[in-house]
Amino acid sequence: LSDQSTQSESTRDRIIEAARDLFSRQGYAATGISQILRASRARSGSLYHFFPSKEDLLVAVLEKHRTTLEPKVLRQPGGPRPDPVERLFGILDTYRGVLIQTQFTLGCPVGGLALEVSNTYPAVRRSIVQHFETWSTAINRLLTDAAGHLPADVDTIALARHVLATLQGAVMLARAYRSVEPFDQAVQQLRDYFERLIADGSEWSGRAPSSAL
Amino acid sequence: LSDQSTQSESTRDRIIEAARDLFSRQGYAATGISQILRASRARSGSLYHFFPSKEDLLVAVLEKHRTTLEPKVLRQPGGPRPDPVERLFGILDTYRGVLIQTQFTLGCPVGGLALEVSNTYPAVRRSIVQHFETWSTAINRLLTDAAGHLPADVDTIALARHVLATLQGAVMLARAYRSVEPFDQAVQQLRDYFERLIADGSEWSGRAPSSAL
Repeated sequence: LSDQSTQSESTRDRIIEAARDLFSRQGYAATGISQILRASRARSGSLYHFFPSKEDLLVAVLEKHRTTLEPKVLRQPGGPRPDPVERLFGILDTYRGVLIQTQFTLGCPVGGLALEVSNTYPAVRRSIVQHFETWSTAINRLLTDAAGHLPADVDTIALARHVLATLQGAVMLARAYRSVEPFDQAVQQLRDYFERLIADGSEWSGRAPSSAL
Repeated sequence: LSDQSTQSESTRDRIIEAARDLFSRQGYAATGISQILRASRARSGSLYHFFPSKEDLLVAVLEKHRTTLEPKVLRQPGGPRPDPVERLFGILDTYRGVLIQTQFTLGCPVGGLALEVSNTYPAVRRSIVQHFETWSTAINRLLTDAAGHLPADVDTIALARHVLATLQGAVMLARAYRSVEPFDQAVQQLRDYFERLIADGSEWSGRAPSSAL
């Protein structure tokens, strides 16, 4: 790369980073162009060059969220825990850490945008769906790894979506309450559900009643 | 009431109704004053008279959502179903109906606002928390009615918050996917959880292992 294109790349990246932060904290519509320019130290010419519309910038922000999802969220820090269900709850714990660290101003950046812009921008909506699919596919992989411990008739795809729904709702409540309590309550009940699934999926309770007597 | 005050009341109501609809569909920040005036057929003088700031209008909208929550959502139409767990899932089904009827443009109006404005407006955030508390208190009441069927150690307050979190996430996914599928998957797994709770809370499995042998 020439110096010129490296510099362009970094301006583009700075704009995306600034927008990502602002959209997450205050929402898409509430974020003004001037705020993005200020936070990214970019000139308006650069902004319009890279992103002809605000919607284009939002799509780039969502693309960035999606590419960082795997290394930053889904791949657990500190090496993989051996148990897939523990890894799943480790992922949920990452969101808990973000909520606490940011004093509940950040949770899942995509969840907020999902509700704000789903009605308005079809291209953005598709990008959000892709993000959710990347997330629940990774969870489904963990559930498939754990399948030997779960009842045979569990629909792991539906269960992965359920985990995503519970997480998103838990993040929403924690942010509204400015407290980790409702997050912990929702995740604790999800864990209780998994414990009951695992108990019911164990060989002991899997036996037919007739052979158990 | 004099004619004058009745008319004021109806102008105020029209403004709240218009804002409620617009905020739900397109978000708070994206809704302009001119749109609210157009939709409510009110003059800007009336708007500023009743609501000195846009935030005041948002608080009034949330108050309206909260007062209609009990009669429109939490009190089931068609008479009370006798089983409290069925009534709970009947409430979730009301949200499913709204999603389908509105082609996924509406779900829970308060959930969207919760993520959009929680960081920005403390008074609004408190109003949203009140809404969620009204909701989960009603669910907790149903769970308390159902307590005889659930394991003795179930924390009904935590479980009510879990139901709320799962619902909010399920609505979010349905709106993003423009499909009822992820909503149904999340609610189906929640139902599976309740079935396992009820099975584990029944007298049969409540027996100590020694007496069962």
